[in-house]
Amino acid sequence: MLHGVIMAGGSGTRFWPQSRRALPKQFLKIGTEQTLIQETASRCQPLIPLDRLWVVTGSVHASETRNQLPHLPSPHLLVEPCARNTAPCIGLAAVCLLAEDPDATMLVMPADHVIQPPAAFQEAIARAAEHVEANPNALLLFGVTPTYPSTGFGYIQRGSAINLRGDIFNVGAFREKPDATTAASYLAAGNYAWNCGIFVWKARAILAALAEYQPEISACVDRLRPAVGTSDWNAALAREFPAMTSISIDYAVLERSPQACVMPAPFGWDDVGSWHALSRLIAPDEAGNTISGLHCGVATSNCIIRSTPEHLVATTGVEDLIIVHTPHSTLVANRNDEAAVKTLLAELERRGLSEYL
Amino acid sequence: MLHGVIMAGGSGTRFWPQSRRALPKQFLKIGTEQTLIQETASRCQPLIPLDRLWVVTGSVHASETRNQLPHLPSPHLLVEPCARNTAPCIGLAAVCLLAEDPDATMLVMPADHVIQPPAAFQEAIARAAEHVEANPNALLLFGVTPTYPSTGFGYIQRGSAINLRGDIFNVGAFREKPDATTAASYLAAGNYAWNCGIFVWKARAILAALAEYQPEISACVDRLRPAVGTSDWNAALAREFPAMTSISIDYAVLERSPQACVMPAPFGWDDVGSWHALSRLIAPDEAGNTISGLHCGVATSNCIIRSTPEHLVATTGVEDLIIVHTPHSTLVANRNDEAAVKTLLAELERRGLSEYL
Repeated sequence: MLHGVIMAGGSGTRFWPQSRRALPKQFLKIGTEQTLIQETASRCQPLIPLDRLWVVTGSVHASETRNQLPHLPSPHLLVEPCARNTAPCIGLAAVCLLAEDPDATMLVMPADHVIQPPAAFQEAIARAAEHVEANPNALLLFGVTPTYPSTGFGYIQRGSAINLRGDIFNVGAFREKPDATTAASYLAAGNYAWNCGIFVWKARAILAALAEYQPEISACVDRLRPAVGTSDWNAALAREFPAMTSISIDYAVLERSPQACVMPAPFGWDDVGSWHALSRLIAPDEAGNTISGLHCGVATSNCIIRSTPEHLVATTGVEDLIIVHTPHSTLVANRNDEAAVKTLLAELERRGLSEYL
Repeated sequence: MLHGVIMAGGSGTRFWPQSRRALPKQFLKIGTEQTLIQETASRCQPLIPLDRLWVVTGSVHASETRNQLPHLPSPHLLVEPCARNTAPCIGLAAVCLLAEDPDATMLVMPADHVIQPPAAFQEAIARAAEHVEANPNALLLFGVTPTYPSTGFGYIQRGSAINLRGDIFNVGAFREKPDATTAASYLAAGNYAWNCGIFVWKARAILAALAEYQPEISACVDRLRPAVGTSDWNAALAREFPAMTSISIDYAVLERSPQACVMPAPFGWDDVGSWHALSRLIAPDEAGNTISGLHCGVATSNCIIRSTPEHLVATTGVEDLIIVHTPHSTLVANRNDEAAVKTLLAELERRGLSEYL
């Protein structure tokens, strides 16, 4: 059976001040009807019914996850005692799934991306699941066709097609986040795709790959196995999970395994990675402004402005700004140097203002 | 005796969103310890004790005035039923003062300016009062020595000295707000001063001048006289005050009277006319930022930023901005086009957002 595993471990400072440590962006509506994690769960329906959805999150976010997904079966909320990146997260999910369904296929996906339309997503997932049923060792990644020379994503170089339909390919190479020139060359080459962190594989296959390439993580996962569903679970998790190496599934396994294959994502995808995403998700007005919430402007252009429905943000004679008002903080940033927000947050920490993070 | 008349009729949109229709800037602390109207009352002490202070304000601001100046004698709060500019305001105050003190000398001053230091102010007022005691028809204006070629003030050209001490002068001419070139020539000439709206004269003298130059206003004021201190007062005021022409005391009388004379103000003065004033009243930091309230910035220069002590304003990669956060609204404006704020407020009105004004 096909199960969905939503990775909701995001700590979410890139959408500050809207997202905060206590409320990262998967719990927010960002150009969306529902919150991003709710959209992620809805997007799987009806292909993956709720009782085959799983969420892995950190302990500080468990209760908000329960609030936002009240119909998630309670044993399907897996709470990491600490953050250990995606390889341990996926190992943990795989071992729990197998206890419920020994032949489980896993769709792994981040909780905080925007994907449109859901029908295209489900159709792609169904085809991917079919492929791994027929090729039970396959580790399938979705690759998003680049729309601009992003330096913010890892790239996957497509090799040759490996199925009759011609929509699944060997991985030629994994490429880390490139510099601008390299990114432009990838875009021009046409056979590179963004690694969007959405995967389909048999739970058994990913555990076998972990055993092969990450024996230490695999040993911890194996020690968790007998505790699944028992009263020993929390103690076992508290013992084994922190001992695992913090490493992404990409570095840990996918970049090393000949079983990795890539399917071009036939759906619209946005990682909502920063405030710039708003101008992709909400159509800008004729002055190039992307507005949500209450705003009134004069001589204002090319700005991303976000407020609440009650608090007025008023602007005059400004351009290329990101302005975000929340009840605790207001950010005013140069739109063309968004990375500086990271520096700003470090400065907040340094100045003892971490309560605002 | 010397009485102080504080004109507190300001409607205060220039300091929006901090000042609002309901709470204009005389009721705010702007680079000051107390609110501007409290500073104005304090500045007169001990030269003019509280029981010789008077405040003229509009009906919507009467209760806030009472809150902020609880020791003001209750009959000394004069409440205009509608706004009629300074000539009717001063006529009203004069007739009330005379009922209490038939030989009253009036110091007239706006409620919302910053003046430093109080000792220099009091010394100047005492000298001015001495002059009008000796010259009971004199209408004395204070002239502030310009520090930059402002196009926002009216100018007074100094004539020849008229007292032995040589610190009081005939008025050569009144000049309306000049264009930039003319303002620069006034500054270079050295004998022009800003009309700061601070006046000293005998109450009788200003009423005589009103009778001469504004007979209609004078007739209304005369009809108020018998009602002062009686139960008819409110009815008389409601009848006579709205009938008066709305006109400034400058246009109405001072520009026409040969009795007008000017004394250079030997004190620091700021009309706190716009957000730029903050950078004069609060020393900028090494990056040229003038900050009040909670702020954290990276690569931020030449900005005027104001928040509360609790709400964080965070900035990165910005310059030459005015950023003002209040609980209801946040303004982000280009510092070099502050006049645009007026356009912005008109736009708010047009869009039905006048509750934010």
